[in-house]
Amino acid sequence: MTILGFKAVHFTKVKAEKVEESGFKGVQVRWLITKEDDAKNFAMRCFEIEPGGQSASHTHSWEHEVFILNGHCLVACGNEEKEAGPGYTIFIPPNVPHHFKNIGNETLRFLCLIPYRET
Amino acid sequence: MTILGFKAVHFTKVKAEKVEESGFKGVQVRWLITKEDDAKNFAMRCFEIEPGGQSASHTHSWEHEVFILNGHCLVACGNEEKEAGPGYTIFIPPNVPHHFKNIGNETLRFLCLIPYRET
Repeated sequence: MTILGFKAVHFTKVKAEKVEESGFKGVQVRWLITKEDDAKNFAMRCFEIEPGGQSASHTHSWEHEVFILNGHCLVACGNEEKEAGPGYTIFIPPNVPHHFKNIGNETLRFLCLIPYRET
Repeated sequence: MTILGFKAVHFTKVKAEKVEESGFKGVQVRWLITKEDDAKNFAMRCFEIEPGGQSASHTHSWEHEVFILNGHCLVACGNEEKEAGPGYTIFIPPNVPHHFKNIGNETLRFLCLIPYRET
């Protein structure tokens, strides 16, 4: 019997989409687990940022839960900046401007999960 | 200014706790991002299962969103079984019996995220 919604796939099998938003440079995203999988509470995305690339500083009313898979980054949140590499777990609270910058020589790859509902 | 809740730490800095539940063998968990971090919607945990170890088959009313970091596993969900290794993303829907088994020679390490609210 096939269980509706059960899936196990390598992340590279999920299509990568270039992030075209203003201020994003060298960033692509794969939506790994979404509402389409019947995931009602939160989504798992995988971001890749090329060396020299970065996301634009932006603010929204939901949090990020992040895990760095490869590469090195500077992550800015409000007036704080932290460096992070593989194995780092990062929490970015809601309503604070933030961005990620690849400060290494290889692709920065990280999981970034967001809720479907705001608290 | 320190931003309340912003954190970036290596996962090894978070205390590992042995999972003592019946049927769990060689399993430990680190709660990486939780309500204590002001994460109101979902929690990020990192599980490690020794070679030969496994979680017990169990069922609950919430989903799992999983990403395999290291090692190889057999993941069972209902009557289905799939093999997964590093880079695999796995969705386990609510209310289906499931378990993970380390089928490799190294530690199986994976992220497993769960909602704080059920749909």
